[in-house]
Amino acid sequence: MSVSIFDSFLTTPDMIAAFDDAAVVQAMFAFEAALARAQGAEELVPQSAAHAIAAVCNAQLYDIPAIIHAGRRAGSLAIPLVKELTRTVALYDAQAARHVHWGSTSQDVVDTAMVLVTREALQLLDDALHDLTGHLLELAEAHCGTPVLARTLMQPAQVTSLGFKAAGWLAPLVRARGQVRAAAARALQLQLGGAVGTLSTMGDHGAAVAERVGKELRLKVADAAWHTQRDEWVRLGMEVAVLTGSLGKLATDLSLMAQGEVAELAEPSGNGRGGSSAMPHKRNPVSSMIALAASRRTPQHAAALLACMGQEHERGLGNWQAELAEWPSLFLSAHGALRALNDAFAGLKVDTGRMLRNIEALHGLVFAEAASSYLAGAIGRPQAHALLEELTQRADHRHGLHALLLDAVKADPALAAHVDLDTLAALFDPVAAAVPARRLAERQLPGLRTRMAELDATHPFHE
Amino acid sequence: MSVSIFDSFLTTPDMIAAFDDAAVVQAMFAFEAALARAQGAEELVPQSAAHAIAAVCNAQLYDIPAIIHAGRRAGSLAIPLVKELTRTVALYDAQAARHVHWGSTSQDVVDTAMVLVTREALQLLDDALHDLTGHLLELAEAHCGTPVLARTLMQPAQVTSLGFKAAGWLAPLVRARGQVRAAAARALQLQLGGAVGTLSTMGDHGAAVAERVGKELRLKVADAAWHTQRDEWVRLGMEVAVLTGSLGKLATDLSLMAQGEVAELAEPSGNGRGGSSAMPHKRNPVSSMIALAASRRTPQHAAALLACMGQEHERGLGNWQAELAEWPSLFLSAHGALRALNDAFAGLKVDTGRMLRNIEALHGLVFAEAASSYLAGAIGRPQAHALLEELTQRADHRHGLHALLLDAVKADPALAAHVDLDTLAALFDPVAAAVPARRLAERQLPGLRTRMAELDATHPFHE
Amino acid sequence: MSVSIFDSFLTTPDMIAAFDDAAVVQAMFAFEAALARAQGAEELVPQSAAHAIAAVCNAQLYDIPAIIHAGRRAGSLAIPLVKELTRTVALYDAQAARHVHWGSTSQDVVDTAMVLVTREALQLLDDALHDLTGHLLELAEAHCGTPVLARTLMQPAQVTSLGFKAAGWLAPLVRARGQVRAAAARALQLQLGGAVGTLSTMGDHGAAVAERVGKELRLKVADAAWHTQRDEWVRLGMEVAVLTGSLGKLATDLSLMAQGEVAELAEPSGNGRGGSSAMPHKRNPVSSMIALAASRRTPQHAAALLACMGQEHERGLGNWQAELAEWPSLFLSAHGALRALNDAFAGLKVDTGRMLRNIEALHGLVFAEAASSYLAGAIGRPQAHALLEELTQRADHRHGLHALLLDAVKADPALAAHVDLDTLAALFDPVAAAVPARRLAERQLPGLRTRMAELDATHPFHE
Amino acid sequence: MSVSIFDSFLTTPDMIAAFDDAAVVQAMFAFEAALARAQGAEELVPQSAAHAIAAVCNAQLYDIPAIIHAGRRAGSLAIPLVKELTRTVALYDAQAARHVHWGSTSQDVVDTAMVLVTREALQLLDDALHDLTGHLLELAEAHCGTPVLARTLMQPAQVTSLGFKAAGWLAPLVRARGQVRAAAARALQLQLGGAVGTLSTMGDHGAAVAERVGKELRLKVADAAWHTQRDEWVRLGMEVAVLTGSLGKLATDLSLMAQGEVAELAEPSGNGRGGSSAMPHKRNPVSSMIALAASRRTPQHAAALLACMGQEHERGLGNWQAELAEWPSLFLSAHGALRALNDAFAGLKVDTGRMLRNIEALHGLVFAEAASSYLAGAIGRPQAHALLEELTQRADHRHGLHALLLDAVKADPALAAHVDLDTLAALFDPVAAAVPARRLAERQLPGLRTRMAELDATHPFHE
Repeated sequence: MSVSIFDSFLTTPDMIAAFDDAAVVQAMFAFEAALARAQGAEELVPQSAAHAIAAVCNAQLYDIPAIIHAGRRAGSLAIPLVKELTRTVALYDAQAARHVHWGSTSQDVVDTAMVLVTREALQLLDDALHDLTGHLLELAEAHCGTPVLARTLMQPAQVTSLGFKAAGWLAPLVRARGQVRAAAARALQLQLGGAVGTLSTMGDHGAAVAERVGKELRLKVADAAWHTQRDEWVRLGMEVAVLTGSLGKLATDLSLMAQGEVAELAEPSGNGRGGSSAMPHKRNPVSSMIALAASRRTPQHAAALLACMGQEHERGLGNWQAELAEWPSLFLSAHGALRALNDAFAGLKVDTGRMLRNIEALHGLVFAEAASSYLAGAIGRPQAHALLEELTQRADHRHGLHALLLDAVKADPALAAHVDLDTLAALFDPVAAAVPARRLAERQLPGLRTRMAELDATHPFHE
Repeated sequence: MSVSIFDSFLTTPDMIAAFDDAAVVQAMFAFEAALARAQGAEELVPQSAAHAIAAVCNAQLYDIPAIIHAGRRAGSLAIPLVKELTRTVALYDAQAARHVHWGSTSQDVVDTAMVLVTREALQLLDDALHDLTGHLLELAEAHCGTPVLARTLMQPAQVTSLGFKAAGWLAPLVRARGQVRAAAARALQLQLGGAVGTLSTMGDHGAAVAERVGKELRLKVADAAWHTQRDEWVRLGMEVAVLTGSLGKLATDLSLMAQGEVAELAEPSGNGRGGSSAMPHKRNPVSSMIALAASRRTPQHAAALLACMGQEHERGLGNWQAELAEWPSLFLSAHGALRALNDAFAGLKVDTGRMLRNIEALHGLVFAEAASSYLAGAIGRPQAHALLEELTQRADHRHGLHALLLDAVKADPALAAHVDLDTLAALFDPVAAAVPARRLAERQLPGLRTRMAELDATHPFHE
Repeated sequence: MSVSIFDSFLTTPDMIAAFDDAAVVQAMFAFEAALARAQGAEELVPQSAAHAIAAVCNAQLYDIPAIIHAGRRAGSLAIPLVKELTRTVALYDAQAARHVHWGSTSQDVVDTAMVLVTREALQLLDDALHDLTGHLLELAEAHCGTPVLARTLMQPAQVTSLGFKAAGWLAPLVRARGQVRAAAARALQLQLGGAVGTLSTMGDHGAAVAERVGKELRLKVADAAWHTQRDEWVRLGMEVAVLTGSLGKLATDLSLMAQGEVAELAEPSGNGRGGSSAMPHKRNPVSSMIALAASRRTPQHAAALLACMGQEHERGLGNWQAELAEWPSLFLSAHGALRALNDAFAGLKVDTGRMLRNIEALHGLVFAEAASSYLAGAIGRPQAHALLEELTQRADHRHGLHALLLDAVKADPALAAHVDLDTLAALFDPVAAAVPARRLAERQLPGLRTRMAELDATHPFHE
Repeated sequence: MSVSIFDSFLTTPDMIAAFDDAAVVQAMFAFEAALARAQGAEELVPQSAAHAIAAVCNAQLYDIPAIIHAGRRAGSLAIPLVKELTRTVALYDAQAARHVHWGSTSQDVVDTAMVLVTREALQLLDDALHDLTGHLLELAEAHCGTPVLARTLMQPAQVTSLGFKAAGWLAPLVRARGQVRAAAARALQLQLGGAVGTLSTMGDHGAAVAERVGKELRLKVADAAWHTQRDEWVRLGMEVAVLTGSLGKLATDLSLMAQGEVAELAEPSGNGRGGSSAMPHKRNPVSSMIALAASRRTPQHAAALLACMGQEHERGLGNWQAELAEWPSLFLSAHGALRALNDAFAGLKVDTGRMLRNIEALHGLVFAEAASSYLAGAIGRPQAHALLEELTQRADHRHGLHALLLDAVKADPALAAHVDLDTLAALFDPVAAAVPARRLAERQLPGLRTRMAELDATHPFHE
């Protein structure tokens, strides 16, 4: 492939290469070669024919654009490919040419090729997830107790810790890495059913041939062809979509925290990254941009896969072809987003000072609940609540809630008798306020670290 | 709830009841009661207060429409509910009223309520899947070898067996039942994080309270609140969407086979089912209709869940609320489709005679490939291929391919010497042609039967 | 209808009422009454029968839940409704009962009913658009020249005016109001085709009957039944979706400007609006929330309509039914969003002081481009650019760019000779920087005001 | 561009070329050239600089892949393009280089380029619609009265005419051609706003420059930049989506009528078109396949555009970029579908004999309603209804309803006295049954022909 100019801009060259025309066609040839060898081994076709066929199963020997052009007319990419393969085999061995693609059907070769290139694509996602979860774990561990505003409904709420927030970004990605692998373990299956899924041409040898082809291509062999039973395949797509959804959540937070008025995090800059064609002072969050774009598009691409599941009878009309065309989009978007976020988090600028200042800018209101609880113990809940209610309305940037409370305590001996000023001060301490979040992060991170190590210990997509 | 008139028409009263206003509100009260009891047990609130609160956590005591109306203004359903609960507790125990909903937040109660009602909804799906897979297994076993046309790209292709075709409908539904359960096991989690997910109000007791609430409600306790980490929840939705996709495939085939011109299968009729307001002779496939409607709508509802994943910071603005509103649709559609197809398959009319006649109507062309293979062995491939090519073009409803071949053999002594007429006849026998499919079905069905028994042996959604 | 608890929360009681079960059923009876009267007038049925039928076409006479229940079994809501209507007519006039629904089909009555209730729904949208465009015009006119930061890629960029920004929110809504009306003028058509769209039962009178029914119901009469030609109907849905998209853009900006750290705009509060169940100091932007939720869901509901267009032959199986069920969602979301934003803009709090402070907080960087242009004229572009580049890197909250430039001018007599300090000061004046935006707003608003008056002058949905 | 192998298979080389990388980049240069010339004419930049810039605005001079690669890093395609343009201008005229892209912003050039290439794409759609509506009009006129089964809910219903059916396919496409043009007239607008949409850099000349650029590029000039007001642009996308929806309806019907068991229509075959890699006798409906694939994918691509409308502030982060990447898909699918259907209808095989036989195969049941009406006049409605009810249940392929009725009449002298056998025979005549449909077609087609001529008389997309 290559993709449209604006698509290419949102993904990576590696993922483009994974689904490239040449990659798909080469995977189709890999299927045809494996099929011929398996049928040779089962003595369904002469060994010599199997060798002759396998020998020319090499995409570089063929005119791929011509095959695509003919495919459009034929209604199937496999038809001209098989025709060209047959013609080429015949140049060397006319007898062997009769055994090309024998007992198989277009969808066998195309689906299997998609499975093979998808396996490469999954490796790319897995690697990028390894990196991104690594960055996030590091961030979470480094900032377990760093106070930062928690925000709900896009309003400042209370204090949390950056580490706990980062753990919240990390955990879904660790889960995604595991779930994508689990779905792939079910979905990366050989497709081999022949014209109508019964492998009828191969007589009693169908199952044995399928076993051999599966073994050569390192693919699971299904109980039956899945020409129109797309559930496991679509589930894999859904897992990639959920992954992109979690990346979108991360990018949303990053872009909000990188706003000029918030400025708690910043994507790295320099070297042509994130500039503006009109405003030299600007630094645009381009990683967030790419991940957000992915998260806007992916739900629809996932829906397209689901919408194509109602494939008719033994092989569908239009819906299968639509599914094939939509499939790569999920991977292109996910990898674009992953790599962009890796760039961002590898050089992330964390402004812990600004985080504190943003808390302070709320002049103590985010601590009102804690103060109310303390005073309730000291002077009774109704009085505490009434006092706080009055003071929070008066608090502003000149007189913060803490100062107003101190004034109130000093002005009222009865109150002063019950209130410990050090304790009160601690309630207005952002670091202390971040402790519950820090503890949760500390409890959560070891498990995530362990799970990440488990995932790193196996390599499901490579030999 | 009830739903719109045209929604209600496409689902079931049971599923409408599962997500009914009263069910959701009652589940919210169940959360509040469990929270109070847990905090009582942990001595965070007085035992008497816990009792007082739990005693009035009963939806029937409240004016639900008024709560909904107030919720719209407040921006959250939980706020007026908590307010009304507090007011009601105060009627009996003014002190206890202060402890209502303590340390919790709106999303805790709403999400947990959705989890609880969703568990009921999952039970309904699971039961309906039990029934439908049962019907399909029966059909597959009864017709393992029944010949029926296989069709590809909406054209007759070759012969398969009805049993193998039914196994192809069955297997994805067996998988779906297992996968929905697996996703549910991860997604049915307590939501309890307090204002910003840190459970800060409960001090060191947060985890213990969560354990107790989870135990009472029979819900898994997550490592951390999942207010804005929706991945496991969305995965559950995706599984339901994939299930509906497989139901759509089944309904597509059923509706195509029930066409008047095909007439191999028919939905049951009678008793007001499938009539026409204008044409008394018509019998409409209403089960297919409902399942097809579900499969058209569900991809979009799934996309909506994915599109809502980018929830901001600690709690989102708009996307969480949108997710809540979209969530039930997936279950309403799936259950409508399941129950409709159960109706259809419980009384399915199978016309095996018509299946044979539809094969015969193609005057032998679907057997051309098999005949060609046989003759190739007898007279050499080039001659066989040339002969068949000529004869297939002449075949029509008066002179089928078999008859033409017999004529050709009789007219040519050289050919007659090599061709066994009984063998030739067998090649044109639909039952023989269905044997490869029958064998595949026979190989596949025992495993499916075993898996179904395993699924029946556990009851994950009920105590 | 009523809708799910979380749906009802995001829309309005008025729009729920517009698509209520009773409203739809009453509209179905309106069709049956009009049909009977038209056939009476054309002497296709006896006048007495027409009167007898029309007399009982009143939803209040019937058990609507029972009709819905029976409809599920029949595969059509119209079948039991017609049956009940026939039964009821027969109570009074057995002969007349034979003429009920004569020559018509289920889809005629259901589609026409949807058209009728949709007309009411459109009136609600139109009214709400009238109000919202009014609020926005007022805001734009009041703040034509009020400086506010323009932000691109979620970063502060330059200065614009609040009035120009508001004009940018307003113009798409004025267009939407006109385009929705234009689409409605094409889509609000009578559906009347009989069993297969040919009106065959009515002989030569079909067209005349359709004219009479259309006239009574105030609906356009199409050239042919549109049972499976849904394009004009779907276009109307798309217009509502585009409207909601523009509301989403407005809500996005509002929610970003209402963030605690930006605080330039605030939704009105008080009286139970936007509180938090956990944090008393919080004020949540609930109008934005509702509009954002609408804008997340609507693209998918629009896609569902498009996905249902492939309706088979003369009347579709499943896709029509799915379309019916999805249709109201677009209107429920749009009206919820409109009314929520009306609430917000009717009481919007505009903090022009904070807008200025947010500009100032960037210590002059947003004016660097303007300063560079001025200095280029004075001392040559290369020198100007070099100077600005150095100074912008040094600018911070203690030494703004303006101050640094003044220092540089004072320190360099050569520079001082060419630079007018007053002119320089004007370049750093936010109000002056907002002038280009103000002029654009002033140019744009009169046209919008005129267009709004034109729209107000006609009332396409009411008599 | 080119697109993925499976995308390219479903569209046309012409449409791929319209959105090709080189086409987009060339359109970007066309914008830069026009901008420079306009600023020269307004004396904002020296005429010589304008000439120097315009002279090298030629995509062939640049390394497009390198620009794309740099664009990914920069977060915008425009930034490296402007940089390379500036560098190239400077080779010839260092002074002029300072005026490149002056006062403009990335989105100005990219949006305008998309508008320009979209205009070419619209011309392709318009041409293909011209052809397809021509084929359909011809078909409709040739078969105004040809009887064919009407089918509802995928069951045979009554008799209609092929011409009326074809008119039902034609009318939405004629409307689509007009509506796409109308939407384009509003959406094909120059984008020119500068950094934040205020054209501030150009002082008082902004409007005049925009007028000049618009004139050179033959684009409408909007009241204000539409950087984040995407409504008109998205409406154009929705019109293309509705067009594809109507093509999907046509392809659905075609594929159903081409089924082997129906066989009323067939796509042309031969010359590598529609073969099967496994079954030589098969003829696959590849045009339907391509159009159906388009109609499955397009709803989601339309939803993606709607989902991207909430673009933040003055220029969006991620959603604009996502919209750009999704945009071409709508056109690729629509043109693929249109051209495929043109292929199909240019050589469509119509089997009117089979249409009659399919009617006959229902042994008269589709005429039962008409017979009942006639007999009601002769012998009273209750008797007629009772007789028909009994006979329709006995009708089968040996004894059709007509024959059974004749027997009944002959056996009952009382009946025979009232029944005219010729009249009765006419009721069972398919051609007579098709008359209502024929008349509707005859009424509808002249208007469609006139409208098509009007559309042909103007050429909105070309000079």
